[in-house]
Amino acid sequence: MKKFTDIFSRGLIVSCQAREGEPLFSSDIMARMADSARIGGAIGIRANAPSDIKAIKKRVPLPLIGIYKIISKESEVYITPTFESARVIAEAGADVIALDATGRPRPNGETLRELIERIHKELDIPVMGDCSTLEEGIAAVRFGADAIATTLSGNTPYSPQKKEPDWKLLSELIEKVDAPVVAEGRFNAPELAAKAIQMGAYAVVVGTAITRPHEVTSWFSQALLIYK
Amino acid sequence: MKKFTDIFSRGLIVSCQAREGEPLFSSDIMARMADSARIGGAIGIRANAPSDIKAIKKRVPLPLIGIYKIISKESEVYITPTFESARVIAEAGADVIALDATGRPRPNGETLRELIERIHKELDIPVMGDCSTLEEGIAAVRFGADAIATTLSGNTPYSPQKKEPDWKLLSELIEKVDAPVVAEGRFNAPELAAKAIQMGAYAVVVGTAITRPHEVTSWFSQALLIYK
Repeated sequence: MKKFTDIFSRGLIVSCQAREGEPLFSSDIMARMADSARIGGAIGIRANAPSDIKAIKKRVPLPLIGIYKIISKESEVYITPTFESARVIAEAGADVIALDATGRPRPNGETLRELIERIHKELDIPVMGDCSTLEEGIAAVRFGADAIATTLSGNTPYSPQKKEPDWKLLSELIEKVDAPVVAEGRFNAPELAAKAIQMGAYAVVVGTAITRPHEVTSWFSQALLIYK
Repeated sequence: MKKFTDIFSRGLIVSCQAREGEPLFSSDIMARMADSARIGGAIGIRANAPSDIKAIKKRVPLPLIGIYKIISKESEVYITPTFESARVIAEAGADVIALDATGRPRPNGETLRELIERIHKELDIPVMGDCSTLEEGIAAVRFGADAIATTLSGNTPYSPQKKEPDWKLLSELIEKVDAPVVAEGRFNAPELAAKAIQMGAYAVVVGTAITRPHEVTSWFSQALLIYK
């Protein structure tokens, strides 16, 4: 199996995602977004679901972190919650599988440890654990995760709910976890991304600020409302 | 003829443009970008060329400032340089025509004064003059322009070449010109756009930061290079 650090060099990973019902929801457009990211200097892509991943890998020669968001009534875990969801995005071309690495119960009673083991053994692909706390990061690496990301801070009810990135979690993971740490979640300005790398993050994932124009528009339009 | 201020309320206008050869070059994608801008709270759109303008007006119920960029060997003026270029974007659905309001010679020997007069008389549409200096703004309003924008500061060889918006030009136009002044050009962050409105700009046009993901990616990737 390749190492995470052989697949991704240090730098900027651009997340290219649109939700159903949004104007940019289209695998072709996500592939064009990923190509725009490549032109702008991204060293990797993060993308959701088999159709987007296939379209992006066909168009853009960059390594890709694949996820598969599956919402279910059964479980709060929705980022690549099951082995089957990991298998189909591996087949679609993902170079790394990212998944929810919280300790919350998963669909089918699968466990994080089993999931990471099966992805390594059966799919031969490195795993990135999306965490919301230091403890989750430590556990995920003990279970074999090849990289750790701060993605889920603010996304679990028990992690801090902030507007800024979770700097505390990022620095603790960098200090205490023996795996590459990826900064992800609200790194919405170049200076925030640069600070993360300066602190020792291996890479930074930026999504909204680059590929979600309706969100960026709302940052501007809300700033103007103050003066109306 | 409608007034500029009846067509556009105060607020954020999002410029949706992609150049030939760029991954997002597509009238359908520009229409989806404009729809994203609407969802995010934009009160208007700026767009280039008949096909994009048609596609946007079909999908998005917002007023639109139309331009038609035509590069020629004959003249340095390329933003809606001729009456014919204004006519086709009016036909495509533009609610306001923006054009180069510098004093530089135009193709076919047309003059700014004639151009504005003919657009008013024959197309019945207000004109926004894209300027690079205070003198150009004053002249454009004297020639009948219904609104003035700072778009071309940094774009003519004789105007200041800056990384920041041209605050001096903006404040002078607001003070000395009796027409709505639109802030445009490098207003790449919400606080810059808010400052323009606070200073008295009638509206702010934001393009790159919202609709040009390869450029935004490069702001991030370049910020990270410092720490490599």
